Amino acid sequence: MNYKMIARFFAFILGIEAILMLQSLGISIYDGTSRTTWAFVITVVATGAVAALMGFFSRRAEKGFYVREGLLCVGMGWILMSLFGCLPFWISGEIPAFVDALFEIVSGFTTTGASILANSETLTRASLYWRSFSHWLGGMGVLVFLLAVIPISRGNEGFTIHLMRAESTGPSVGKLVPKMRQTAAVLYIVYVVMTVINVIFLLLGNMDLFEALCTAFGTAGTGGFGVKADSMGSYSPYIQTVTAVFMLLFGINFSCFYLLLLRQVKSVLKDEELRLYLGLVIGATLLITLNLLGTFASVGETILHAFFQVSSLITTTGFSTVNYDLWPSFSKAILLILMMIGSCAGSTGGGFKCIRLLLLFKNMRRNLSQIIRPRRVRVITVNGKTVDESLIATTNSYFSIYMVILLLSFVVVSLDGFSIATNFSAVIACFNNIGPGFEAVGPACNFSAYSVLSKLVLILDMLAGRLEIYPILILFNYRTWKKR
Amino acid sequence: MNYKMIARFFAFILGIEAILMLQSLGISIYDGTSRTTWAFVITVVATGAVAALMGFFSRRAEKGFYVREGLLCVGMGWILMSLFGCLPFWISGEIPAFVDALFEIVSGFTTTGASILANSETLTRASLYWRSFSHWLGGMGVLVFLLAVIPISRGNEGFTIHLMRAESTGPSVGKLVPKMRQTAAVLYIVYVVMTVINVIFLLLGNMDLFEALCTAFGTAGTGGFGVKADSMGSYSPYIQTVTAVFMLLFGINFSCFYLLLLRQVKSVLKDEELRLYLGLVIGATLLITLNLLGTFASVGETILHAFFQVSSLITTTGFSTVNYDLWPSFSKAILLILMMIGSCAGSTGGGFKCIRLLLLFKNMRRNLSQIIRPRRVRVITVNGKTVDESLIATTNSYFSIYMVILLLSFVVVSLDGFSIATNFSAVIACFNNIGPGFEAVGPACNFSAYSVLSKLVLILDMLAGRLEIYPILILFNYRTWKKR
Repeated sequence: MNYKMIARFFAFILGIEAILMLQSLGISIYDGTSRTTWAFVITVVATGAVAALMGFFSRRAEKGFYVREGLLCVGMGWILMSLFGCLPFWISGEIPAFVDALFEIVSGFTTTGASILANSETLTRASLYWRSFSHWLGGMGVLVFLLAVIPISRGNEGFTIHLMRAESTGPSVGKLVPKMRQTAAVLYIVYVVMTVINVIFLLLGNMDLFEALCTAFGTAGTGGFGVKADSMGSYSPYIQTVTAVFMLLFGINFSCFYLLLLRQVKSVLKDEELRLYLGLVIGATLLITLNLLGTFASVGETILHAFFQVSSLITTTGFSTVNYDLWPSFSKAILLILMMIGSCAGSTGGGFKCIRLLLLFKNMRRNLSQIIRPRRVRVITVNGKTVDESLIATTNSYFSIYMVILLLSFVVVSLDGFSIATNFSAVIACFNNIGPGFEAVGPACNFSAYSVLSKLVLILDMLAGRLEIYPILILFNYRTWKKR
Repeated sequence: MNYKMIARFFAFILGIEAILMLQSLGISIYDGTSRTTWAFVITVVATGAVAALMGFFSRRAEKGFYVREGLLCVGMGWILMSLFGCLPFWISGEIPAFVDALFEIVSGFTTTGASILANSETLTRASLYWRSFSHWLGGMGVLVFLLAVIPISRGNEGFTIHLMRAESTGPSVGKLVPKMRQTAAVLYIVYVVMTVINVIFLLLGNMDLFEALCTAFGTAGTGGFGVKADSMGSYSPYIQTVTAVFMLLFGINFSCFYLLLLRQVKSVLKDEELRLYLGLVIGATLLITLNLLGTFASVGETILHAFFQVSSLITTTGFSTVNYDLWPSFSKAILLILMMIGSCAGSTGGGFKCIRLLLLFKNMRRNLSQIIRPRRVRVITVNGKTVDESLIATTNSYFSIYMVILLLSFVVVSLDGFSIATNFSAVIACFNNIGPGFEAVGPACNFSAYSVLSKLVLILDMLAGRLEIYPILILFNYRTWKKR
């Protein structure tokens, strides 16, 4: 294990984090919320100091970096980032229990948006900003950010590839641009530009700048922390529509936007994952609208609420305009399915991912026709290209691991005695980085009632979900820590 | 498609069914329940007549039988058998709605044990007997019975193999004896002998013969229809213990018993699926006992109830001694997991099967170590033998299809407006051939409140679960009906 290289990498992460926290420090000083100001000062200094120490001791790191180190860096890196990132909430006393503060920031970085707060309006603006900004940072991936900005990996291409692969979502989508660093930069530019456009649209709806920034961070990262206690319920239909559309956009594979920039419109329109994703959104919105007819004042309003909730849950954002836990069972069942599927690979959204579902479906169809006519050899194609059999095998295996973690977490969390629907949806909501679930963890409720053990399990679920399992799973494998 | 051969096969099935119904006719005449007697007379005559007609028109069937025909025979065969088998309930008026009668008999043949009756004690003894006997018949497979008894397949070995493979549970287990017919006969003899032993043990506990037969049928087929309204709750601890142990035995791969007869004790003890199965039972019983401490009068009673429910649900029988829906969430969560896993392959039990879980686990472990060290080639072994990669692929694919059917059924069933836990557990209980679920379909409740649409979906789920999906799925594939 190349510990020096890992330490150097951690130093970079924490350094960046300390710098980014200065934004909230500024807001706190401007607002004159002195306890929060002190909390951010202490955190920034502590984080910076640890980063500097780590950087100093690892200044002569050797090269040589393998998959194992890459996965470990990502898993441990996100945990470290969260441990320091939760300090402002805890030190300022705004969230008194450490495990709650940790839950909140992990929920932020992993773009989950599950909260232990009964009312988010009790937080200072500085803390609200940091909480929402963590979504934006976590959405695209902190390490991708590093790669785009800092020449940490010069002359060490293996390092870059392993990191990028571990942190980006979904199975690999084929190289966009030949070099990893360029890819990272392109994706981040798309991300920044789209976020800015989102903010502008929100400002046009008379939202104030602070709320527009926080809302756009939550939308872009598909996180879902709101600044209001009722999430998006009290905003105008215009703001709700803008947010629903942007959530949908941020759930699309970013390479599609890049291809649009290159004017390859046709290949975007033919993208099978995109078609499945949009098909699911349209189908679910239709079914739920039909199921809800008569609940709201007009059909238009019904469509808006159906579309907003569908868009929010399939992209794993977790904003809500109404308490969908009160909707009829059929609508809830559809939402639950969307929660499990999730968004497109290569987006900021979480979940199992549409492309994996597509691969499972295609493999299922192949298997069925294999039974009828065993002798014919069949390949699976996506977007006209043959899919490598090893990717099919990995997808199948990922599905199994996914279900096993889901069910084990469900059993442990059940120790707290809540209902089956509460526990099951809580685990799905955390594991798929959504936020709210049903019943006692529904959109009008929060996660504070769970025990410390359950919160720790849910924290691990959020991390495992965001990093697609392996970087977290590897931390629990004894072979990882064995010397070669 | 070889329609004549298929018709000939259906003629045999229906003929056998008509003959087997004579048992209930006898009971009805003995009891003097005249409406039921007439219902059985009409059914036996009708079934026999249809069988004779089919047999007459297909007397010159050609050979030539492929997988497609085999699967179709099994799927359609079970549906036909159920359509005729439900007639006595309907004609006698004991179950007035046809879809309810169909639900009840499909639940019987598929060894599910889910009922639409609020109180099974309202049925006549003749109907109760037919209901329980359908478990016994369905447990081992009606077609396996045909193969063991009747020379239908002389000179047509392909036919036999396809049928056997389609109807027996779990992935193929390696041939026990070289010839298919012999295998079928051996398994049926084991089945009959064990059922007789079970009846003797029950009689020793002062149960009357009728109840002992019905209970043993429900246990042997891992079905779960009881003759009493409270399932096994009012029986003595001795009867409950006997039933719990026999349920466990009938959930074991029958080839293990055959190997025991051959005195190959070692290879049985080393069987990895058996170890996983027993490990799950012991672990679950322990955890639930700890969780329930203080609920019952003594620790012994707690262990008995925990063991009974664990044994009943992992074998997918569905008997109960208490209303486990009132147990704490943790115990319910464990039971729900056991319900999803199910028993061993090659047993009469349903569910996903322990061997498939084992293969998924082994494949997951391989996948994880593949990520750490990509260049090493690894094979998966079970019981010391290398597992064919195509079996791993099939298992993965089966898991996906299983989950997709589960979730789609869940959505449709949700239209009726029951709670998430009710609908989810109802689908699992039917698809895995268990019987009771949680909340509104818990052990103290029944399935009568569901709409006709939901009942039809659940009927298909029961059939798909019992026949391991493909024979039912193939009926919905347009290619099946296409001419070559």
